[in-house]
Order: sequence, then C-alpha cells, then structure tokens
Amino acid sequence: MTTASICTIGDEILIGQIIDTNSSYISRELGDAGIRVREMLSIGDDHDRIVQSLRKELENSDIVITTGGLGPTKDDITKAALAELSGSSHYVEHPGQMEMVYRILHSRGLEVLDINRQQAMVPDSCEVIVNRLGTAPIMVFRFGPERFGHQATLYSLPGVPHEALGAVADVVNDIKSHYRLDSITHRTIMVYGMAESALSKLIEAWEDALPPDMHLAYLPNQLTGVRLRLSVYGGDRQENAARIEERFSALKEILGDMVYSDGDDTLQGAIGRLLRGSGKTLSAAESCTGGEIAHLITTVSGASEYFLGSVTSYAPEIKIRVLSVSPETIDSCGIVSSGVAAAMAEGVRRLTGSTYAVATTGWADAYGDEHEPAGTVWVGVAGPAGTKTARFNYKNDRKRNIERFSASALNELRKMIESDLKA
Amino acid sequence: MTTASICTIGDEILIGQIIDTNSSYISRELGDAGIRVREMLSIGDDHDRIVQSLRKELENSDIVITTGGLGPTKDDITKAALAELSGSSHYVEHPGQMEMVYRILHSRGLEVLDINRQQAMVPDSCEVIVNRLGTAPIMVFRFGPERFGHQATLYSLPGVPHEALGAVADVVNDIKSHYRLDSITHRTIMVYGMAESALSKLIEAWEDALPPDMHLAYLPNQLTGVRLRLSVYGGDRQENAARIEERFSALKEILGDMVYSDGDDTLQGAIGRLLRGSGKTLSAAESCTGGEIAHLITTVSGASEYFLGSVTSYAPEIKIRVLSVSPETIDSCGIVSSGVAAAMAEGVRRLTGSTYAVATTGWADAYGDEHEPAGTVWVGVAGPAGTKTARFNYKNDRKRNIERFSASALNELRKMIESDLKA
Repeated sequence: MTTASICTIGDEILIGQIIDTNSSYISRELGDAGIRVREMLSIGDDHDRIVQSLRKELENSDIVITTGGLGPTKDDITKAALAELSGSSHYVEHPGQMEMVYRILHSRGLEVLDINRQQAMVPDSCEVIVNRLGTAPIMVFRFGPERFGHQATLYSLPGVPHEALGAVADVVNDIKSHYRLDSITHRTIMVYGMAESALSKLIEAWEDALPPDMHLAYLPNQLTGVRLRLSVYGGDRQENAARIEERFSALKEILGDMVYSDGDDTLQGAIGRLLRGSGKTLSAAESCTGGEIAHLITTVSGASEYFLGSVTSYAPEIKIRVLSVSPETIDSCGIVSSGVAAAMAEGVRRLTGSTYAVATTGWADAYGDEHEPAGTVWVGVAGPAGTKTARFNYKNDRKRNIERFSASALNELRKMIESDLKA
Repeated sequence: MTTASICTIGDEILIGQIIDTNSSYISRELGDAGIRVREMLSIGDDHDRIVQSLRKELENSDIVITTGGLGPTKDDITKAALAELSGSSHYVEHPGQMEMVYRILHSRGLEVLDINRQQAMVPDSCEVIVNRLGTAPIMVFRFGPERFGHQATLYSLPGVPHEALGAVADVVNDIKSHYRLDSITHRTIMVYGMAESALSKLIEAWEDALPPDMHLAYLPNQLTGVRLRLSVYGGDRQENAARIEERFSALKEILGDMVYSDGDDTLQGAIGRLLRGSGKTLSAAESCTGGEIAHLITTVSGASEYFLGSVTSYAPEIKIRVLSVSPETIDSCGIVSSGVAAAMAEGVRRLTGSTYAVATTGWADAYGDEHEPAGTVWVGVAGPAGTKTARFNYKNDRKRNIERFSASALNELRKMIESDLKA
C-alpha cells in the first residue's frame, strides 16, 4: 500500500500556540484515496532539523506532505531546506504564482513588496501547483528510486488552513497520476441516540457477521452522534459499493430511527434537508443551551428559508414574559421539568408562528435542584401533531453538557419532523 | 535548556478520526515551566514502530511524553512496547490504580472485568502516578545516562483528553523535582479590535525597544482577539515580572481601550467580570450571528447572574413582532443597517428589562443587498447612557464571519460597560 507522512513545520505548533487541524484533514483525504498515513510529525523552523527530518520521512514513506513554514516572513528557512534536500542551486520565478501574488495583494489594496515577490520564487528542482487562495506556491519535489530506494514525492503546502485544505484535492490528483493506488470503497451512515459502547453491543452480531475484507469504524462526536463507516480495500469499487449497501440495509433495520443520514451529515443539516422547500418553518426556545441550538441551526447555509428565530430565556421572568410560560407551571413542576419544556416550545411556536419548535430547560452546571440533578435537560418539541418531551442526563462539564443537550434536542426535533412526513 | 518530545500513539489520529488537542496543551504547559518542545509525533498502534520511535525520541530529548494507546481494548500493544523499551520482563499490579479501576467502574454501575483489571497491571520497570480521572495509570520510566547518553524520562499518559490534561500538572511537578529547569517568566495581555499585522505596525517602535532577553509572541484568535505574551528566559523571576510590568504599562498607553484583560481571558469572560456582582444585567438580539453571542455569553459559568436572555430574530417578522423594530426602519435603512441594529438592541433591552443589550444584523454569507455587501455586520449596543452602533466588514466564509461578528459585538458591549464604569 502506498504510504505517506504528514509533517507540519513551524514553531507556533511546537509551542502550542496553534492546534494542527490540517494533518487530520489531509490524512482523511489520503485515506479515502487509498493511501496509508504512517506518521505525523511537527518540527520547528530550523534548517537542519527540516532537512534531516524530511530526508528520513522520504526514506520511509512514498509520499511526504508538509504544511507551514512558508509565510512571507519565514519563507527562507523552509525553502532553503527544500532546496538543499533536492539539490537545487538556484531559485526561479514562477510566473503563475507571481500573478497570484499581485492579484491577491491588489485585491486587498496592498502594495507588492519585495518580501511578497520572493514568495513566487522557488527552487529550480520543483514543480509548482499554483495556490489560488494565497501567495505561497505549492511545491512538488519528485525523487527517483536512486535517491531514497523508492519513488518518493514531497509536496510542500502553506500552513494557513484554508489554503492547505484547498490544495489537497490537487495534491491527491497528482498522486493518483503518479502512483498506482489500491482501490478503496467507503460508505458512512450517521446515527444518533446511543453511546458508542451500547451501540457496539447492539450491533455486535451484525458486525461479527461482516466478511473479513470489510472494516467497520466508529467515529463518535458530541454534536453529531456516531458516524459508522464501512470500508473495503481492493476489489471492484461498484461491486463493493453494492455489498456495503446490502450490509447497511440490514444495519438500518436494527438501528431504526436512530439513523439520520446516509452520508456525512449533522443533525442540523438533516433538519435543513427535511424542511427546505417544504414551506414548513422552525423556531427555538433555549434556557440552559443558551443559544447553541439556534447557532447550530444557523450554521447551515440557507437556514433563513425555514428558521424564523429563537428566544434564549435564561432568566425565569423571560420564560414568563416572552414565552408565556405560566408561573404556576414553574412553581409546581420546577424550572427544569417536562411541563416547562413543553410550555416553552409551545410558547415560542405561538410567538413566532412557526410550524415546529424545539425547547430546552436544564442544569448544565454542577448544580441541580430538588426536582432534577445536575446534567439533566428536558427537551420539548412542538408541531402540528402536538407536543412531546424527553429527559436526558449527562455527566460532563458545562461546555460538553451544553453540546450534548443541544444535540439531543435537535435529534428529538428531527424525529418529530420525520415521523410527521411518514404519517 | 531541557527538551521534550510529545508523541501520540493511536491509529485514530493517523487516519484523521480525531484531532490531537492534547499535544498543544501539554506543549504550552511545558513551555511555561521552561522546557522546550523540539518535536511532536503521531504514530500508529504498532509494537515495533512504538519501540523504535520512542527510542529515537529518548536519544534526542530529555523528556518524552506519550498520550494514547492505553484503552482497555488496546492496552497490550503500548504496554508491551514500553516493557520492551525499558527492559521489563514482567507486570505487577499497582494497588492505587486498581482501587481507582474498581471505584470508577462501580460509580458507573459497571462490573469489573478482567480486561479492566489488566489496566492496573504495569511493567515492573516503571513508577506509577495514579490517574484519578480514569482507569489507565500514568507510567513513568526513568533512564540513567548510560542508556541514551543523558538522563531521560518517559511519561505515558492516557489519550482521553480530560485524563491526559488532568495528568499534566503531576508530570510537570515530577519533571521539576528531577531536572534543573531554566526559570521563565511570562505575562499576557488580551487585545481586541485590530488585525495582527496592523497591531504589529502600531507597536513596532515599542517592540523594537524591548531588551534582547525579552520575547514578544502574538497569539491571534477569531473569538478572543490577539493575546500578546512577553517572556523572559533565565534571571530572577520577581525582577523579570517587574520589568515586564513596566513594558506592558507603556504598551497599554499605546493600545488604549483595545486592551481588555491582563491575563488569559475571553471577551465574554471580561464582560462577566464587569457585570458580576454589579446588579446590572444583559440581553442580546441576534440576526446573522444566530445565537452565537448568547452561546458565548452562557459558556461563562455564573452567567445566569447577569444574563437575562436573548432573541434570535432570523426572520424580519420576528424583528418587528418580538423586538418591536418598526417596518419603516427596515424599509428605509435596509435590514442590515445602523438603524435596525439600534432598534434591535433597544427592543430587546425593553423586552427583557436589562441594563445593557447587544444586537447584530448582517450578511454572514456570500450575499448582500443594495445597502451593504456580504460580510458586513452592524452592531448595536444599548445601555443607560444611550445607544451606539458600529459597522464591521470581514471577508471570510459563513462560519468564520459569524465568529468575527459575534466577537466584534461583544467587544463593543465590553467597551460601553467599561466606559460607563469610568464615567
């Protein structure tokens, strides 16, 4: 199998100023293309360390992808290291990248300085993929088998995440045209409503019956539930896709309405798909989740088509005054209760005139009251067919509880809309 | 200077399932203690690779910290590799960790299985720091200079972030009692309201006049602005702290009300400090930021003391119906305008009866209208002394625009509250 190393260059990662998110993305894209990442490495802005580390990675991997070390102020170190490594004695201007440097700086109303023009100068030993999102070029160094014992390629990408990520498709295409990659077939379904360990128990028999060439991966996430991925390495793609389809059909029977998507998705994305173009609308009333549900809903582009708005009623008076929750309900049931959750959902639905409404009331912190302990949330969902409530309890810190509460609420809403569509 | 390598063990990072956030945290803590991180590395669950990579790191660094590879199902590989590396021939039970295994599983209502008891078994060549947050022990392997040419120590931490992070203080203390570390003095101020490059230009003369042993670092963040850190390596801590204080005083003169905190902080944290205990309250009205401002405010523990609630008025009707923005204002000024931002802030302030209110209306997406282009937000802040508005324009994608809009709004609010306090 073709192997790769991913290397970030830059003191800012080593001293913990920045979390490296590029490597994870690059690694997933390589994996999807059938390339195995054997190592990730972060090193500082130091000429000798760069030369020595990259040489070693090129000895051990077919492909080395570096990110970072290419800003206008520290360009020199990385480029000089790459020039040394590839035996280049001089720099040449790359006209396509130079054009981008001028275009980008002019669009920002900035003058093009020498330091900027330097960015389009590259060692004469490399090929360039023009970076259309920034001023630093993507450099490709190819090494024949005489150098490291095998055909090796080094891709140098900028460190700025959207530039690095924007370059990955071009890099993968270049790899595909120079290496013979194993075929790999993936498919994903999204599941919400059960912890990873319980889920694993529930589908144990199904998983044990998988053929030996089929691999299941669990990718749990606080906000989106568990992503289940089936992969087959090698073989015919179309045939494998059909085999995966068949297995997933059986799995969906077991999981029922916990499955909310047949691809990579989020709960708010799934809700968007259900509502968009339907003429149906949505509103939210939040207490303990403090705006997170509205925030998640509005991260979906086009949410304005169905999302009318929300009320964060953090103080009890706002629940009463704005959402028309009755003080008696609060007094008799407690502020964190099924009754208040239902009244909040119904209140914001009336206030906004939406088709659906979702509401939360809970204790995100290490406090509770005589009715409910810390970590408890009551979710209310209201729609044309009535109102439902559900209770959840999580044992995390404040931030993670808010995320879990929000995701659970979105999931209850998603189930109500789906069940209405089926009815 | 004492050096360290940080190594994550686990296929889940290499295939991009998980982003490694532990290394960044560990690296900052080590840096604060005066230890320089020279490399970060991620490797898979493979015995030989683990042994070979860790041996190499121990040759090159004084301290090696590993995270991961210690879950109940894959314990074996990492522990066997550490046993081989340290020349251990058998495992011993660690009573303190065994007690934690029983305590943790019982508190979750789970039976203690053999696989769980195995976790408290460690190579006889190591010392154990009991992990009070999980079942996997923290193992410490010490190597005399005869082994790697210098005194070397390997700390093996679990991969679960809150367990890994929870162990770092103990690890740093252990390092301090075994190594003679250089003193290091840090101080930080938080600045909001200017891009890093412009800021760097503004303070250029101040920065150029810094003594050669004083280092300035910029740590920019979308949501919290720029963290400026001054560090001095070596010397007397107290004296250095006074020297840094003096330089920062001069810097604050230059930066004025852009400085919002004297330590690590967030804008919503600073607002919390200003409001807590004052009897003053806060509300928000959001359009394009869709709940993010309320969410940020309520991530601060104790926010319920001053935050009454918010309205996300995504649809224009909600601005009119709930926030009492007049339809004429919307028609004449446009939905994204100073007039609407002011009316929203005043509307939610009236609705909730809060002392202060903050509002946003803008275009987060790649759309605009005849009044304002995409990426524009109008922020309104209302308080006892009146209402102010401010306009910002950013050129990011939807998600990052929402973050920048929210942070800019919180900063305007912060400035209004501070200026009221000074009046």
